[in-house]
Amino acid sequence: MNYVGIDIGGTNIKAGVVDDTGAVRDLRRTPTVIDDIDKLLKTLTTIVSDFQGHTSIEAVGIGIPGLRSTKTHLIETSPNIPCIHNLNLEALLSKQLKLPVISENDANAGAYGEWVAGAARGLQYMAYLTIGTGLGCGLVLSGALYRGASGYAGEIGHVNVEPDGRPCACGSTGCFETRVSAPGLIATARELGMTESSAEGIYNMAIQGDTAALATFEVSGRFLGIACANLINLLNLESIVIGGGVMASSDLLLRSAADEVRRRAFEPAARICPIVQSQLRTDAGLIGAAMLARDR
Amino acid sequence: MNYVGIDIGGTNIKAGVVDDTGAVRDLRRTPTVIDDIDKLLKTLTTIVSDFQGHTSIEAVGIGIPGLRSTKTHLIETSPNIPCIHNLNLEALLSKQLKLPVISENDANAGAYGEWVAGAARGLQYMAYLTIGTGLGCGLVLSGALYRGASGYAGEIGHVNVEPDGRPCACGSTGCFETRVSAPGLIATARELGMTESSAEGIYNMAIQGDTAALATFEVSGRFLGIACANLINLLNLESIVIGGGVMASSDLLLRSAADEVRRRAFEPAARICPIVQSQLRTDAGLIGAAMLARDR
Repeated sequence: MNYVGIDIGGTNIKAGVVDDTGAVRDLRRTPTVIDDIDKLLKTLTTIVSDFQGHTSIEAVGIGIPGLRSTKTHLIETSPNIPCIHNLNLEALLSKQLKLPVISENDANAGAYGEWVAGAARGLQYMAYLTIGTGLGCGLVLSGALYRGASGYAGEIGHVNVEPDGRPCACGSTGCFETRVSAPGLIATARELGMTESSAEGIYNMAIQGDTAALATFEVSGRFLGIACANLINLLNLESIVIGGGVMASSDLLLRSAADEVRRRAFEPAARICPIVQSQLRTDAGLIGAAMLARDR
Repeated sequence: MNYVGIDIGGTNIKAGVVDDTGAVRDLRRTPTVIDDIDKLLKTLTTIVSDFQGHTSIEAVGIGIPGLRSTKTHLIETSPNIPCIHNLNLEALLSKQLKLPVISENDANAGAYGEWVAGAARGLQYMAYLTIGTGLGCGLVLSGALYRGASGYAGEIGHVNVEPDGRPCACGSTGCFETRVSAPGLIATARELGMTESSAEGIYNMAIQGDTAALATFEVSGRFLGIACANLINLLNLESIVIGGGVMASSDLLLRSAADEVRRRAFEPAARICPIVQSQLRTDAGLIGAAMLARDR
């Protein structure tokens, strides 16, 4: 059987044909239409139809950055894709495609992907953190994707770590996302006197030995470590898998994160919880969405 | 059917006969022997035997402050009761009493009590926070007591909220417990110029209108609110139940906690998650332990 997995990002849509084992058979990428729902739906149906020209598709899974209610199946809000608002994407697409369609928060989809086909295969308790424009998180607890009472669980990006810290887009101050994300990294670099305006630029300077760039990764990694220690102490996990765009620079981040975990997490809980890099890398979301469609 | 529930604290042991519905039929309290395991076991078997003189007992449940491994059933460590160390209290007592005996972390037992017979009856997702000498936490997720991979879950007392904050007994700095606990309250009062050395004393001054005492509760309540907002954003719960000795002063703490939750938690998640006082009060642990023995 084959499934289509679609990862809708604020900039690009990444879609693939994924087989029963989680292997990607065909892949394409296209820009995201963020302000016209009809055009966005058209893009999605065209992608699936094109795939159907080559292979038989059983079902479609979609990962979306936003809050999806498990009660109504509506995407309530998707800050980076404003045309998706109180929308039942599953019903709309299913009607047009005449295929089963499921939708899920993108970080949850990524967690599911790493769990069934990536770095956390066979475990019962894991967290997947995805560091990019924001800090996303999906949880697998007691052997099942954990969505919480209404589907909103996993927002570690908006767990507080500095009550009087940096202002966050969510309205609070001092959320982890203000520290552990591309914009958070850039803000730290600026505080340390750098003028770089991309996480990639800071990384390139760090590997050349630039002191401020190295310090930027050390500070950000420290906060990543605190987020991991918090998850370990609260949820007693077996693995934390770190992915997302910023993880090109994972070696620098993970080094200082590990120090912080040793300092702050209970030793018997930390001992059983390695912090590892994503195996599925930037395909985690689409593979997870396809596997959710498989297991619907 | 009747069960014995025992809540072993660092100072006192509280034990009761609890019926099938969670109602306490008989209650007694005795000092905890913390440094002699034989004397402690003798105290526990005497309590149960005395109860058996009046009524038939089906099973015994024990709540203990410490780390209990779900894999080995050992209490690995109990910092306030040093004679309990790598000990299978269940096996030892069961052999002596010739009754089924279960043990559980005390905050987990309290959460279970509030869930089956208290403020969170009928819910699927809840947290129980107990504020006393420390800050304990038990979780019910997806309709079951959540213990994590090895039984250590729920340590929100050692979730970090101020990376460079007060030193914590666990070795880290800035854990919630350094703020939300009786010692945390006293430390805040001292910083605000007070000389009181008990949470109760600070509370008595606050209700008389003392400015520093009121500010102490406001600051502590603020951190309690951040802990609640973090739980809401990460776990998308239906209720947070607050109990423990310090909750005699709950009115003052909960007021400023509520402001902080409004400021920091996602509105759709916070809307469905009331923060309420414990219904079982100081009996939550023993009732929960008895109900865990019932449902063993």
